[in-house]
Amino acid sequence: MKKLISVIGVWILSSYALATDTLIKHVEPLSWWVGMQHSQLQLMVHGENISTLTPEINYPGVTLVNTQTTDNKNFLFINLNISEATKAGSFVISFKSGDKQLAKIDYRLDTRAKNSAMRKGFSSNDVIYLLMPDRFANGSAANDSMADQLEKYNRTLSGGRHGGDLKGMQEHLDYIANMGFTMIWPTPLVENNQLQYSYHGYSATNHYKIDSRFGSNQDYKNYVIAANKKGLGVIQDVVLNHIGSGHWWMKDMPAKDWINFPDNYTQTTHRRTAIHDPHAAPEDATLFTDGWFVPTMPDLNQRNPLLATYLIQNSVWWIEYANLSGIREDTYSYSDKNFLSAWGKYLLEEYPNFNVVGEEWTSNQAIVASWQKGKRNDNGYISYIPSLMDFPVHDAMRTALTENEGWSTGLIKLYETIANDFIYADPMNMVVFPENHDTSRIFSALNDDVNLYKNAMVLSVTTRGIPQFFYGSEVLATSPKERDDGAVRSDMPGGWAGDNINAFSGKGLTPAQKDAQAFLKTLLNWRKTNEAVKTGKLVHYVPENSTYVYFRYTDSKTVMVVLNKNTQDSKLDLARFQNMLKGKASGKDILTSSVVDFSQPLTLKARTPMVIEL
Amino acid sequence: MKKLISVIGVWILSSYALATDTLIKHVEPLSWWVGMQHSQLQLMVHGENISTLTPEINYPGVTLVNTQTTDNKNFLFINLNISEATKAGSFVISFKSGDKQLAKIDYRLDTRAKNSAMRKGFSSNDVIYLLMPDRFANGSAANDSMADQLEKYNRTLSGGRHGGDLKGMQEHLDYIANMGFTMIWPTPLVENNQLQYSYHGYSATNHYKIDSRFGSNQDYKNYVIAANKKGLGVIQDVVLNHIGSGHWWMKDMPAKDWINFPDNYTQTTHRRTAIHDPHAAPEDATLFTDGWFVPTMPDLNQRNPLLATYLIQNSVWWIEYANLSGIREDTYSYSDKNFLSAWGKYLLEEYPNFNVVGEEWTSNQAIVASWQKGKRNDNGYISYIPSLMDFPVHDAMRTALTENEGWSTGLIKLYETIANDFIYADPMNMVVFPENHDTSRIFSALNDDVNLYKNAMVLSVTTRGIPQFFYGSEVLATSPKERDDGAVRSDMPGGWAGDNINAFSGKGLTPAQKDAQAFLKTLLNWRKTNEAVKTGKLVHYVPENSTYVYFRYTDSKTVMVVLNKNTQDSKLDLARFQNMLKGKASGKDILTSSVVDFSQPLTLKARTPMVIEL
Repeated sequence: MKKLISVIGVWILSSYALATDTLIKHVEPLSWWVGMQHSQLQLMVHGENISTLTPEINYPGVTLVNTQTTDNKNFLFINLNISEATKAGSFVISFKSGDKQLAKIDYRLDTRAKNSAMRKGFSSNDVIYLLMPDRFANGSAANDSMADQLEKYNRTLSGGRHGGDLKGMQEHLDYIANMGFTMIWPTPLVENNQLQYSYHGYSATNHYKIDSRFGSNQDYKNYVIAANKKGLGVIQDVVLNHIGSGHWWMKDMPAKDWINFPDNYTQTTHRRTAIHDPHAAPEDATLFTDGWFVPTMPDLNQRNPLLATYLIQNSVWWIEYANLSGIREDTYSYSDKNFLSAWGKYLLEEYPNFNVVGEEWTSNQAIVASWQKGKRNDNGYISYIPSLMDFPVHDAMRTALTENEGWSTGLIKLYETIANDFIYADPMNMVVFPENHDTSRIFSALNDDVNLYKNAMVLSVTTRGIPQFFYGSEVLATSPKERDDGAVRSDMPGGWAGDNINAFSGKGLTPAQKDAQAFLKTLLNWRKTNEAVKTGKLVHYVPENSTYVYFRYTDSKTVMVVLNKNTQDSKLDLARFQNMLKGKASGKDILTSSVVDFSQPLTLKARTPMVIEL
Repeated sequence: MKKLISVIGVWILSSYALATDTLIKHVEPLSWWVGMQHSQLQLMVHGENISTLTPEINYPGVTLVNTQTTDNKNFLFINLNISEATKAGSFVISFKSGDKQLAKIDYRLDTRAKNSAMRKGFSSNDVIYLLMPDRFANGSAANDSMADQLEKYNRTLSGGRHGGDLKGMQEHLDYIANMGFTMIWPTPLVENNQLQYSYHGYSATNHYKIDSRFGSNQDYKNYVIAANKKGLGVIQDVVLNHIGSGHWWMKDMPAKDWINFPDNYTQTTHRRTAIHDPHAAPEDATLFTDGWFVPTMPDLNQRNPLLATYLIQNSVWWIEYANLSGIREDTYSYSDKNFLSAWGKYLLEEYPNFNVVGEEWTSNQAIVASWQKGKRNDNGYISYIPSLMDFPVHDAMRTALTENEGWSTGLIKLYETIANDFIYADPMNMVVFPENHDTSRIFSALNDDVNLYKNAMVLSVTTRGIPQFFYGSEVLATSPKERDDGAVRSDMPGGWAGDNINAFSGKGLTPAQKDAQAFLKTLLNWRKTNEAVKTGKLVHYVPENSTYVYFRYTDSKTVMVVLNKNTQDSKLDLARFQNMLKGKASGKDILTSSVVDFSQPLTLKARTPMVIEL
C-alpha cells in the first residue's frame, strides 16, 4: 500500500485505501441509487493509465456490462446495470491487469428518498425567487476566501467575490417565505475555481462539488432541507453548454473531442436561428453551438456520447442528492440539440412530474416554443423540457410600459406577445419575469417610475405562467439601462454585517422601497390563496385607452386585472367585460382591500394597476 | 307571355321567355359544367316570392336533390346533383305552384376545357406582374364612362376612374411578356358599381359580371386567351370578406344573416391575433372578422352555409370560365376561418395543381404560416391554400436595406426573417414582393437610391419563393413613404393617349428609369433559364460587413447572390463560401456578363449586388 487517497471526497464516503500503485483521481458520479427508473449507470474513472486495467465487480444485482475507453488512457468508462432487486450498500470495484489487482475503489448505492421519482417540480402554483449566492448574504466570514480556491474575497470589485454563501442564504429563508415566494433559484453553486469572475458560478470546475466559498455539498443539502421545511423548493441552475477553463478536465482531457474548438479559440456567433433555419449554412450552425462564450468557458461537445451520459447523470445526481424541485438550464440552445432532447427525455422519464426551465434568450417566440415539451416541430425535433424562460414577455413588458400608446405601440405589444401563445405547446409553463441577473433592473428600465413598476409586478404575478423575480426587485434595485452585470448583481442590502440598509429587516429602506416591498408581499401572499390566478385560464382584451384588461378564471373563481398607463385619473367603462363579470355587482381590489362597484365605470388612479377578485 | 327578360345576360345565354308573371331577376352561377369533381351544384334563384314555388327539372343525369329557403321569400336555393355521365347542354327549370308553371329558366351545362381539372397554378417557376386595370392602360375611350355605372371617368381625381380597361391590358401583353414576367395579377375586374372609389375593384356589386368600364365577361375571357398565347397566366383577385354597398344583394338581402352587423355599422379592429390567440376575448375575435372595413364595404357572414356555397361556386366558375392560373384572395383572415378552410379545400380538390395566394398583411410569421397548406396548427385548424403573401419579407427587406448595420439591425433582419422559414410548411410557395398596391413604392422607401432598389430587385427575383412585382416598379415609380393610394396607384406612363412618358416604348424615360427597366428585364429573362433560382434550395450565410450572401442550387446548377450595402467599393473574402463554390474557379455575373474569378476575394462595387452563375 503506497498511498491513501480520498477518491470520492470525505464528505460522501469514508476514505478508502488503494491497494496498489495506480492513482485513481476521480470516480463520477460520486455515488448512485438503487430503484432508479433507468437501470444503467456509467462511471467515469480517472487515473493514470486506468484504461489499461480490467475492472471487476461482485455485488448482487450489479452487472458490469462493458467498458469504454477514449484516446486518453487515463480515463475508463464502466457501464453497469443495476437490477431492480439491487439493495443499497457499498461494493468494491477492483482494477486488474491479468490476475493482479492494481487498484480498487469503493462505490456506494443509496436508497432513494420516499417519493423521489414522483417529486413535483415547480409549476404555475409557484413564484420563483432568483438570487446570486455570492451577492445575497454573507453568513460566514470564514469561507470568504478559501485555500483551495484561486480567487479571494474582494468586495470592492464589482466582478469579484463578495462573500455570500449558503449560510447567508439559509438565514434568510424566512424572509423569502414570508414575502410569498415558494421556490428559490440560486445561480450555480458548484465549484468555479477560476482566477476571476468566479462569483457568478457559470464556469464549473467540478460538476460534483459545491464551491467551498459557498459551503459544502452537505451544507447545500441542508439548505434545501431547511427551505423545504418552510414551504420553499429549490431549483438548481445547471450549465450543459460549457465549463470553466479551470475545470480539472482541462488539465487531462477525457477525450480529444470532449470540447469544441480545442485548439483554436472560436467564439459563438449567438446567431441562434441557424439551428432551426432550413436554409442555414452548416458552418453558421456549427459556429453557434460549438463556438465558445468567452475564452474562460470551454464549449462542451455533447455529441460525444460519454460526455452526454456524464452530463445527464450529473443532473440526476443533484436532483436525488439535494432533493431538487426543478432545474434551470443555462444557455439552452447552445448545446447540441440532439443531446438536449436526450437529456430532457431522461430527466422526465426518471421524474415524470419534475420541471425544467430552459434559458433561450430571444424574443423570437417560434424559436422559444420549439424547445418546449409537446411542441410539434415541423422538422420532427422533439423536446422534453416543460418550461422556457419567457424572454418575449420580458422584452414586451418593458416596451409596453414605456413606449407611447399608439395603433401598434405600447400595451398592444404586450397583448400581441401573449396573443402569440398559440405558438406554445404550454403557455402556462412559461416562466414570466420582469428582470433577471443578465438584464437591467426593471425599476430602472421603467424610468424609476414606481407606478409603472407596480404594473410590471402585477403583470408578472397575474398573467399566465410561472412568475419569477430577482433578489432586490422588491426594494426597487436599480442599474444602468445598458447591461452592467456588476450593478445588476449588486449585494442585497442587509446581507452583510454593517450594512446600513437592510432589506430583510426594513432598516434604512426609503418609504418607496418599503411600499414596493409591501406591495409585492401583498400580491404574492394573495396569489397563494387564489386558484384562478395560479392555474385558471386567461382571457384578455385588446388594449384601449392606455389600459390592458384581462381576467384569470376557473369555474368558481375570477380575477380581473387592469394594467393602466394613464398619467391622469380616468374611468374604465365595463361594458366590454360583461361576459367575464358574470353579473357580479362588485369585487374587491386586493391591492387596496377596497370594494369595487361594477355598476359604474371603474375609477382608475393615474398609472395605478388594479387586481380585483370577483 | 307578359315579359321578356334576359335572366342570365345575353353574353352567356340566349335570352329566354318567362311564361308567367313571376319575375326571375338572378340565377347564379350563370352556368355550370359537366364532369366536375364535385357533383353538387347549388343555384341561387332570385325573384319575387320565388321561394313559394316548386322547381322542376327534367334532364338526364341532373337530379334536383332539394331546395332551401331563407327568411327572404325572394330567394330560392336549388340543390342539384350532376352525375358523372351527364352530357353538356341546356335544360329548363320550371317553377310551379301546384300544377301551374309560373316561371321558368334555361340553364346550361358546358363541357370543361381539356385538362381543366389538372391545370397548373402559378409556382416558383413564375414571376407575377400585379397591375390595376383602371390605372394601367386605357385601350378604349368608349367605355371610360358607362350608362349603367354610377361613377364616371375623371382622371383628375386620384381616387377616380381613369379609364384603364381590358383592351389596354391586352395591348401591352407583349411588353409584360418581354420583360420576363409569366403571370399577371390584375386587381379585381368584377363590377364595382359604387358612387366613388370604384376603380380599385374591391367593392363587388355583381360577382358574375366584369365591370363594363373594363369590358365584358367575354373580353376578360379573350384577354386570358391572348395572355396564355404569350406564355402568361392570369391570376384573379377574389374578395370573400366583403362586397360593395352597391351590390344588388343590399337592396334585397338573401337572408337576414347574409352580412355581419347589418343594422349597426361596426368597423373591424384589424386585430388579427384574436382568431389564433387561445386567450382572446370572443368579442375581440368577432370584431375582427365581422366588423366592416369601411361603411361602403358590407362584411359577408360566411357562416351562412348558403353564402359559403355561393362564394365557393363563384370562385370555381371564374376558374373554369376564364381559364385562370391562380387566385389571389384579398383580406384573407377577415373571413370566417372555417369557411376559408372549406373554400380552399373545395378549390384544391377540384384543381389539385392549382395555386391560391392569401393576403395576410402582417409581419407575424406564425400567423402567416398558420394559413398555409401543410402547416400543422396546434389548434387543429387545417388550411388548404398553398401560398401566402410574404409580408414579413416585404417589411424586412425595406428595413434591412435602409437601417444602419449593427448586431441586430440592417441585413440581419432580412436574414433572420428568412431564417424563420422553419415556421412555414412550404417557404417556396411564399410570394415575395418589394411593393404592392397598398404599400409605398419600393424606390421611395429606399430613399430613391437606385443601387438599393437593385438590391431589392435582386432579392425578390433570387430568394426562395414566387417573385411578384407591381406595375411601374420597373421604371422607378415613386410615392410618399406614408400610405397614399392615389400616388401608389398612379397611371402607368404610356398607358394613355398623349402621355409624354411611355414606359412601354421607352419614350421620355430618364436614363435611370431605362437602366432600371433593363436591369429587371435582364434579371427576369435570365431567371427563366436557371433552374436553381426557380426551384433550387436556398442556403444563406449570416450577414457580415454589410453584405448578405446566399446561394440557390440544384444538383447541377448553383447561383451565388451578394446583396451589398457597402457605400464604398469593397472586397468579399470567399473563404466562408468554399463549400458552396464547390471548387469552381470562376462564375459569371449575369448582371454585367463579366467573369468572376473565385481565386481572389470578390470585388464589390459600392452598394452593387451581384448574381453569379456557377
